[in-house]
Order: sequence, then C-alpha cells, then structure tokens
Amino acid sequence: MDVQKRQQIFDQAKEWILEAGTLIRSQMNNPLIVNTKSNRNDLVTQLDKEVELFFTTKIKQKYPNHSILSEEGFGHSLINKTGITWIIDPIDGTMNLVHQRRNFAISIGIYDQEIGEIGFIYDVMYNQLYSAQKNKGAYKNDQQISWLDNELLLEHAMICFNHRWLCENKLVNEKIMQQLVKQVRGVRAYGSAALEFAYVAEGIVDAYITMHLEPWDFAAGKIIVQEVGGKITSISGEEINPFTGTSLLVCHPQIHQKIIDEYLLQAKK
Amino acid sequence: MDVQKRQQIFDQAKEWILEAGTLIRSQMNNPLIVNTKSNRNDLVTQLDKEVELFFTTKIKQKYPNHSILSEEGFGHSLINKTGITWIIDPIDGTMNLVHQRRNFAISIGIYDQEIGEIGFIYDVMYNQLYSAQKNKGAYKNDQQISWLDNELLLEHAMICFNHRWLCENKLVNEKIMQQLVKQVRGVRAYGSAALEFAYVAEGIVDAYITMHLEPWDFAAGKIIVQEVGGKITSISGEEINPFTGTSLLVCHPQIHQKIIDEYLLQAKK
Repeated sequence: MDVQKRQQIFDQAKEWILEAGTLIRSQMNNPLIVNTKSNRNDLVTQLDKEVELFFTTKIKQKYPNHSILSEEGFGHSLINKTGITWIIDPIDGTMNLVHQRRNFAISIGIYDQEIGEIGFIYDVMYNQLYSAQKNKGAYKNDQQISWLDNELLLEHAMICFNHRWLCENKLVNEKIMQQLVKQVRGVRAYGSAALEFAYVAEGIVDAYITMHLEPWDFAAGKIIVQEVGGKITSISGEEINPFTGTSLLVCHPQIHQKIIDEYLLQAKK
Repeated sequence: MDVQKRQQIFDQAKEWILEAGTLIRSQMNNPLIVNTKSNRNDLVTQLDKEVELFFTTKIKQKYPNHSILSEEGFGHSLINKTGITWIIDPIDGTMNLVHQRRNFAISIGIYDQEIGEIGFIYDVMYNQLYSAQKNKGAYKNDQQISWLDNELLLEHAMICFNHRWLCENKLVNEKIMQQLVKQVRGVRAYGSAALEFAYVAEGIVDAYITMHLEPWDFAAGKIIVQEVGGKITSISGEEINPFTGTSLLVCHPQIHQKIIDEYLLQAKK
C-alpha cells in the first residue's frame, strides 16, 4: 500500500476508534443486554453490535471499495481478498466487559490482500491505544514500543493462556501443557486475546498461546507484535493466514522455537 | 478498638501508603535488583525491602507499642498478639512488578488482637486505593463498594486462581480443580493475591482460590472482602486466623458453600 494512502487510513481509523471509545465509556454505567452465541459462555451484548455498526457504517460510507470482516456480522458476507480489508472485533473480551466493565479492547487490523498494513488495539477503559503500521514500528499511545531483543530463557518467561488448556480437551494434550506451566516463571490469564497480543508486544508477558482464534481476534495483534520483532505462528509453527481461524503462539523471538518443539508439537492432538 | 482511635490510625496509614506509592512510582524507571527467596520463582527486589523499611520505620516511631508482622522481615521477630498488629506486604505481586512494572499492590491489615480493624490494598500504578474499617464498609478510592448480594449461580461465575493448581501438585487433586474450570463461566489469573481479594470485593471476579498464603498476603484483603459480605475461609471451610499461613477461598457468598462442598473438600489432599 502507498505510504501516504496508508497514513490517511491510519489517521481516519484512529479518529473513529477514539470516538467509539468515548461512546462505550459513556454507556458503561447502563445495563447490558447479554446474549449467548455458540455456547453458554460465548457472550455478546448490544454494545458489541452497536460499536460494530458504528465502524461498518463509517467504513462503507468513506471507503466503499474496502471489504469488512467483522465478528458480529455487520461487515460483508463476501470478502474481496484482492483489495483492502478491515478485520474488526468491536469488543474483544466481551466476558470481561460483562463481568468487569473493563479489560476489553477494540481490535482493528487493516490488510491489503494478505499483507497486514495497520493494526489497532484499544484498551477502552484505561484509554491505552496500541498501534502499528507495517515497517514503521509499534506504539503504545505516542510512545514507540521497544524491539523484543532482550535475552530470555524459558524458565524466566511469563506466559499467558486460558486455564482450560490444562483440562482435558479436544485440541491439546493437557499433560504437556501442565509441564510447560512448571517450566516457566509464571502464567497469567486476562480474558482478552487482543490485550494479550498487546502485552506480548509491550514485553509484559513473553508468550500468549491459544488453540483457536478467529481472524478478528488476531488481525490487529499480528501486525503490532510483528512490528516489535515478535513471532506469530500456529502452534505447529506454521505461518498464519489473516482470513482463516487458527491456533496461535504469539511470542518473544527467543523462546518461540523452544515452546513449539518441546511442548506444542508434542501436545497437539 | 475505639472508633476515634481507629479513624486516627486509618488516616495516618492512608497518608503513609499514598506517600509510599509516590516513592515507588518515582523509581519505576530505575533498574530493579532481583533476588530469589524460597525458590527460583519467589522474587524479591530492593524496592520490596525499601518500602517495607519505610513503613516499619514510621510505625515504630509513631506507634512504639504496636507490633509489625511483615514479609521481608523488618517487622518484629516476636509479635504481641494481645495488642495492635500491622500486617504488611510492601509489594504484593513482586513477579508482576519485575516483569510488568504494574499489577502489584501495597497490602496492609491492622488487627487488634485477632480482630481485623483496618485494611488497605493499594494498586500503586493505577492509583486505586481499596480500604475498609470494621463495620464501616469498604471503599475503592472515595466510592463505597456495593454489598455482594446479587443472585449468582456457579455456572455464571468468573473465578481466579493460579494455573499450577491444575497441574499435579502436593496440595490438591488437579482433576477436581479441572472440573471446576469446566463448570464456571471463566477463569483468570492476575498474579497478585491482594489485588485478587480486591477484585472479589469489587465484584469483578466472584471467587479467588489459593492453596497457601502467608498472613501478609491476606491480612488486608480479609477485612475488605468481609466488609462487602464476602466469605473467606480455608478451602475446607474453616475460619482463618490472621497470624497463620493457610489455604483460602475468598468468595461471593452465594457460591462459597457449593465450591467448598462439591470441589475443594473433594480436591484437598
């Protein structure tokens, strides 16, 4: 993508995201209407839908040739993968929104064909905006995030993943994952994939592991983490396609291969 | 304790805590000297020691008759349990301090004999002060925290505990803990016991479970959670003594007995 054109889209997207944040915060003391989707713990609220509609309306008006792939389905049913695509999660961490009224994020990745050009993860309640443009580095608000080039041993790493991967499940051998817990220094679980990507980029956790995410969960994070030298692959070490659901290891470069070789390849069912 | 005397101690402790917070934030960009204690992941920094010395010096000077029980050992070696005791963790969540430079807290509980009179948990980097006095309710900054009286089913609960209780360990049967994970709506792990107590009080998580804590980890949290109607017992349902290390279930009152009866009593080794 042309650099000037990209900067213009970046500036516009940022303006909309901050506006959406203000909208969300203004409604934070109102009751939420909570429904479930694929299972009893897969939550959606009217705010998820309202925020998605806010973005899709703006984008369709200003950029009618762009495609939109979005969690709640207000985007396009057919994506033109040869053009520019906005991949949107209006509220990543809906369970946190419902239970905590914080610790959720707006996540937007903008791709030109399969190339990640722009990523935004906005921690709405703490007003922290993580952003990146391809080859221009990543930022937390106005401060550039450092390259992940410190020495790191796995036994000094802090990683994050959902507790359920330590329980019997269809995707990984929980006993291998339990060995990983014992190997590292500490494990956390925050309940928002987008924020967990942002934390890896920022270097406050060293890896985030998940057995399945949809494109809107990782589209922004992939761009931001890559812009600080982080590695993102499937749990088998394969490259990620931005339009396809996948498992993920999002990781500090020094421990990526070791986690794949010694744990995830063994654990994968 | 006399109410006026308690208010005076509360005001003084609060002033010192805010002062310690300013001290910590002023040093947050300096390198940390990290050492280990009981095991390779039990960390301590010079800041833990400096902050503890700050409190113990102030307390010994102003309240020479009070006892101090504190994590890093600058308190008294012999506690007079018939008088007033300050139970202090200068930095709860030292691993978070080291890796994240946030998500840690100062924790101070003040007891008159075994009665909890005053509790403070201070989330230093987000400048959020949780506090309580016996029979006067709990506060987050200047706002009173609501009583935990909402209806709650276990399958709608969000709970938090360390991933390691899902791995083979000496204290609980991990398979029963894995069943609990599958029963509830979501599980989180934040890495600071004090903050996890504060989150239960605030109602943003519904339970916090741990197999072992020392008095300085829970002294403040116990008082704050009780002041909003939360239940705190060992994982067998026994009452907690503030001067003795213990397992803990810190919990919304509606699901406390169910977690004990159907999970923790079964899981306990």
